[in-house]
Amino acid sequence: MSRRATTLETEAATRTTAEVGAQGTVRVAVAGATGYAGGELIALLLRHPFVRVARLLADIPEPLPIERAHTALRGKALPVCELPCFEDLAAAEVDLVFLATPHKVAHDVVPALLHRGLRVIDLSAAFRLKDSRAYARWYGFEHLAGRALAEAVYGSPELNAAEIRGARLVANPGCYATSIILALAPLVRAGWADRAAGIVCDAKSGASGAGRSPSDGLHFPEVNENLRAYSLFNHRHVPEMLQALELAEENFIFTPHLLPINRGILSTIYLRLAAHRTLEEVIALYRDFYACAPLVRVYDQGQLPEIQAVARTNFFDVGLALDSATDHLIVISALDNLGKGAAGQAVQNMNLMFGFDEETALV
Amino acid sequence: MSRRATTLETEAATRTTAEVGAQGTVRVAVAGATGYAGGELIALLLRHPFVRVARLLADIPEPLPIERAHTALRGKALPVCELPCFEDLAAAEVDLVFLATPHKVAHDVVPALLHRGLRVIDLSAAFRLKDSRAYARWYGFEHLAGRALAEAVYGSPELNAAEIRGARLVANPGCYATSIILALAPLVRAGWADRAAGIVCDAKSGASGAGRSPSDGLHFPEVNENLRAYSLFNHRHVPEMLQALELAEENFIFTPHLLPINRGILSTIYLRLAAHRTLEEVIALYRDFYACAPLVRVYDQGQLPEIQAVARTNFFDVGLALDSATDHLIVISALDNLGKGAAGQAVQNMNLMFGFDEETALV
Amino acid sequence: MSRRATTLETEAATRTTAEVGAQGTVRVAVAGATGYAGGELIALLLRHPFVRVARLLADIPEPLPIERAHTALRGKALPVCELPCFEDLAAAEVDLVFLATPHKVAHDVVPALLHRGLRVIDLSAAFRLKDSRAYARWYGFEHLAGRALAEAVYGSPELNAAEIRGARLVANPGCYATSIILALAPLVRAGWADRAAGIVCDAKSGASGAGRSPSDGLHFPEVNENLRAYSLFNHRHVPEMLQALELAEENFIFTPHLLPINRGILSTIYLRLAAHRTLEEVIALYRDFYACAPLVRVYDQGQLPEIQAVARTNFFDVGLALDSATDHLIVISALDNLGKGAAGQAVQNMNLMFGFDEETALV
Amino acid sequence: MSRRATTLETEAATRTTAEVGAQGTVRVAVAGATGYAGGELIALLLRHPFVRVARLLADIPEPLPIERAHTALRGKALPVCELPCFEDLAAAEVDLVFLATPHKVAHDVVPALLHRGLRVIDLSAAFRLKDSRAYARWYGFEHLAGRALAEAVYGSPELNAAEIRGARLVANPGCYATSIILALAPLVRAGWADRAAGIVCDAKSGASGAGRSPSDGLHFPEVNENLRAYSLFNHRHVPEMLQALELAEENFIFTPHLLPINRGILSTIYLRLAAHRTLEEVIALYRDFYACAPLVRVYDQGQLPEIQAVARTNFFDVGLALDSATDHLIVISALDNLGKGAAGQAVQNMNLMFGFDEETALV
Repeated sequence: MSRRATTLETEAATRTTAEVGAQGTVRVAVAGATGYAGGELIALLLRHPFVRVARLLADIPEPLPIERAHTALRGKALPVCELPCFEDLAAAEVDLVFLATPHKVAHDVVPALLHRGLRVIDLSAAFRLKDSRAYARWYGFEHLAGRALAEAVYGSPELNAAEIRGARLVANPGCYATSIILALAPLVRAGWADRAAGIVCDAKSGASGAGRSPSDGLHFPEVNENLRAYSLFNHRHVPEMLQALELAEENFIFTPHLLPINRGILSTIYLRLAAHRTLEEVIALYRDFYACAPLVRVYDQGQLPEIQAVARTNFFDVGLALDSATDHLIVISALDNLGKGAAGQAVQNMNLMFGFDEETALV
Repeated sequence: MSRRATTLETEAATRTTAEVGAQGTVRVAVAGATGYAGGELIALLLRHPFVRVARLLADIPEPLPIERAHTALRGKALPVCELPCFEDLAAAEVDLVFLATPHKVAHDVVPALLHRGLRVIDLSAAFRLKDSRAYARWYGFEHLAGRALAEAVYGSPELNAAEIRGARLVANPGCYATSIILALAPLVRAGWADRAAGIVCDAKSGASGAGRSPSDGLHFPEVNENLRAYSLFNHRHVPEMLQALELAEENFIFTPHLLPINRGILSTIYLRLAAHRTLEEVIALYRDFYACAPLVRVYDQGQLPEIQAVARTNFFDVGLALDSATDHLIVISALDNLGKGAAGQAVQNMNLMFGFDEETALV
Repeated sequence: MSRRATTLETEAATRTTAEVGAQGTVRVAVAGATGYAGGELIALLLRHPFVRVARLLADIPEPLPIERAHTALRGKALPVCELPCFEDLAAAEVDLVFLATPHKVAHDVVPALLHRGLRVIDLSAAFRLKDSRAYARWYGFEHLAGRALAEAVYGSPELNAAEIRGARLVANPGCYATSIILALAPLVRAGWADRAAGIVCDAKSGASGAGRSPSDGLHFPEVNENLRAYSLFNHRHVPEMLQALELAEENFIFTPHLLPINRGILSTIYLRLAAHRTLEEVIALYRDFYACAPLVRVYDQGQLPEIQAVARTNFFDVGLALDSATDHLIVISALDNLGKGAAGQAVQNMNLMFGFDEETALV
Repeated sequence: MSRRATTLETEAATRTTAEVGAQGTVRVAVAGATGYAGGELIALLLRHPFVRVARLLADIPEPLPIERAHTALRGKALPVCELPCFEDLAAAEVDLVFLATPHKVAHDVVPALLHRGLRVIDLSAAFRLKDSRAYARWYGFEHLAGRALAEAVYGSPELNAAEIRGARLVANPGCYATSIILALAPLVRAGWADRAAGIVCDAKSGASGAGRSPSDGLHFPEVNENLRAYSLFNHRHVPEMLQALELAEENFIFTPHLLPINRGILSTIYLRLAAHRTLEEVIALYRDFYACAPLVRVYDQGQLPEIQAVARTNFFDVGLALDSATDHLIVISALDNLGKGAAGQAVQNMNLMFGFDEETALV
């Protein structure tokens, strides 16, 4: 994996730390600032030494102090959250726009933002799937921004760092997708997984992953002391996973469950090795693959990730167990759905795009 | 307290067990069947040997099997839940209507129901306050059903059993109100509380007490791992408490808090005794007052109620602690907001109205 | 399935309702009364019309009122909980002993209890595995009660009703085991599962399943807002599952997870059909298999069990989803680990043993 | 930093930032590193630019990587956690010792640590109470370290900054104590509270406040979906509160409750103003009192703290509500019991002792 190697085209497009420094800092706008991912983004950006939060936007009836939406931001120096007026976001004022908006909103505004010279990290799914026809099926709208879609880079820093560095538009991966893709990439890319035997991904997520809009299914007493599976054989993040892992749909099952906790995803993934390996060999494969990934932690034999190890962090943790008699492998991954699964990964992408150390503000 | 004594007028109005038995059972309708109190009512009524659930009504777009609203009712023999059409509820078909509807709905339909010869237990607040002018301030509507209001009996079985037996319309108390009224009634009625020194009620409730409509404040991640106080100096249940306890507003403080649990209210109540008493004397006062109350449990010295002791029960538990040096008394009460605080108390009222043992289906 | 048919040998061993009635009721002892399963047993037995709780035993320093261990039992008429003195349990006083004790304790006392003419329902694992050699590996003790083990009947009423009716010793299944066995039995017994393709069982349990002894891993802040997998490729309940389903270890994976809730197990089970079937056919298979099982609820197409539907009930719920293109089937089962997964199933077994309706006190 | 005028004696005792910088950083040891307060201390100290964690100690059977005790510390560069050997902690290696140990351990080791020239911040209660005789009553041991006790400074930075700067031994306040003291100090010191009318403090804490040792009462299913009051008229933190606020025991009531959450304390405090004031005046009093306190946030009228606003922060939040008709005031305070209530306040004290900005690593 040569993901730290910079290419010529990357350098051309990237403002280096020195350039940014000359102008002070990266000036960012956050759209969707009142949602959970928006709030987490703001909190991370406040800790970032080379960033200034210049604009906060949200779909609200009238401007409001952002601490009203996120009480933990009380007392921080932040702009008032404004109604979303993407037309007045200009490169003269802002270098980078984070979109933590509904998919369709992102789809609609990205082309104009790029046209005006802004760089964009889109936390929605609007630019994640290379096949534009997939949007009608999975997201319920027809994708009309084909040029932006073609240009978009899938923002998985451990897999695509070089392209992210040079990107104008980064499609930040879904939280479930990150949980599965990073857990399987070393195995699948090495050809160690028995694809024909099938891969089963059983994922469990905290409720903040479903966003901040109240609904019957997310009403407190309906989630608390409960667990339910949903979207069987039919979750939106599956095409992302298949695309990133180059896997076929027929041998891949993904089932999400709603946990009665606020933050965190734990995925338990079942597969069979294509050939006999020891657990030491499998762990070594993962360690090697992620040797340069500061936000990935590969566990020792006998240790397994749990949600508390990653909640409110930006780490992706992965542990492994093998039944040598049958070559069945269980991969357990954990991340914070708002951290490495959304805002943390978005900031990591920003760090690559602007030439900062990848983990700045994230560890 | 002679609350079990039946009076002549009570007997006249009450269908006895034998009479009901002759017709089979008490036939009840539950309006507001899809809410939490409605669901709890149905579950209790299913366990009742002398009741048949004849009709289920709710404000829903179209009729639905009630198990879709309350998954725990799956497989029970119950009528389909219909849209609320109070006009066709008639005494020929139904003996008693439970209203677990919004206050204003109850206000609007009760007079006609009574007129048609139905008896009503109203779980809303629409007929709790004797002063009709209070409704504008506390509930935001003008009360126009003065005759029904005058007739309504406050449904606190431990305090008003005789009137409840004869009532056509019972106003079922609020959950917080029950939590405070039963905790203070023995002391206040005996004149043992120092009213001038003030009474402070600090109450904590699970989220089902706020009902089943989704809202920002009841969205899972906003309640979980959180606690907040609300309605300071201004909660709707205060006038009920003052009315039942015959206390003045100026020396009475009630503060509710939202707990990250589904069910249960624990109230911690602070007051000063008007004269020196031992804890044994105070406990004896409570035991005597509640000697005939099968759903009240007075704790021994050194024992205190907690929510798990009452959750999913219909009991009201109360424990006491005294600082003899200063005559400060702490009363701790616990109940389930959907049980003794709503549906359980409603069934208890029904039992009195129809001459069954008070605790039938409740213990 | 002819499990309701009584056989001659069953009738010989069973005291009928009439016989029991002649003596009043079934007199039961509960050993391990202070644990969670013990508390649930007591609560269920109190609701049972033909049972008297005669003795409560626990490994405690001195006798204590059982309400001190289970606050929700406050005020119930129950014997004081005594120190376990199995020697003085005699058939003159007790008809049936429920053992909710550690495995080794059950192993040690059962032969003598049987010898004294008592019938036993053992909630521990001590008599579940037919191969006595398995105990050293899975439970850490050598099994020396071979005769009792040979006699013991695995207490899965939906699979073994006839044998349970005549049994003196019933080995009550584990909670996880029940969750998997009943979810797979219809498919496996019909030969519809592709055994070679493997079966993956991903189970999630509330914390009461781990018992009442405090430990680092069950300390509140370590479980709350967390999720962890454990016992990968190595859970004690696996041999029970394989034995009951007649499956081989190499194609069967079971992974338990600890949920931050009190009660309930949801299992998500992945397998491939051996031949193409429609979802309607699969659901029909389940409905047929469980046609006479009053505590099993098979869900309609499009509906799935969740934990709230079964928590604090004695039901086993099962729902199904099929990917027709690939014949991948997902079975989702839910039960309460203390209800159908422990005490509820134990009472169901008692009902069969004493000739009561199977669901008495359980619905 | 001149927010609380530095005195000559303070300067003499304090190593300035420059002096510390000359040696690199403040070298700290954390004793009790495996507990919750210890883990939080380590996490905060890792973020501190002028601190090096030199030693970790705990009462454990054998040395262990600290990430085994605190999974969220996985991958951090930290010393292995050793068995507590206070004898080999010397000023040549360590500048400051944080004691997050049992009270008695702190009592026993502090004199020797001071003697060897180390500075100490003690998170236990061993040096909080000026009256050594109080220890027998409240903490169950006789206090024999009178000289250290006399020297100890109560580490409430908003009240005692000058003394803390010069201290060799800081007694870090209790979590509940901080929650009450900072909520009342402005009022009490200004003489605005009617002391004779009494002050009622109703506090609710998350379970991490009770420490990390498993016990029956902190077993997950006993805390979850529950709430209980404890230590009525008898909590250990009361003497601290009375001492810091110079209040008398007879008019002061404090009742703690155990919340089913991990972190955070919310206290609801009831009192009467000694003279009529507007809410604006009261809020202004608080704002003025805390004008230089970077970790205190006084809320605007109509806004109230809740636990989510402070959880995992080092802030102390306070909001106010007034019933002008009766002069009853409710003060609501919120903090994180491990943050401002323990480790955060300890680091704040360290910052004062070593001349750093008070909020370094804390905001």
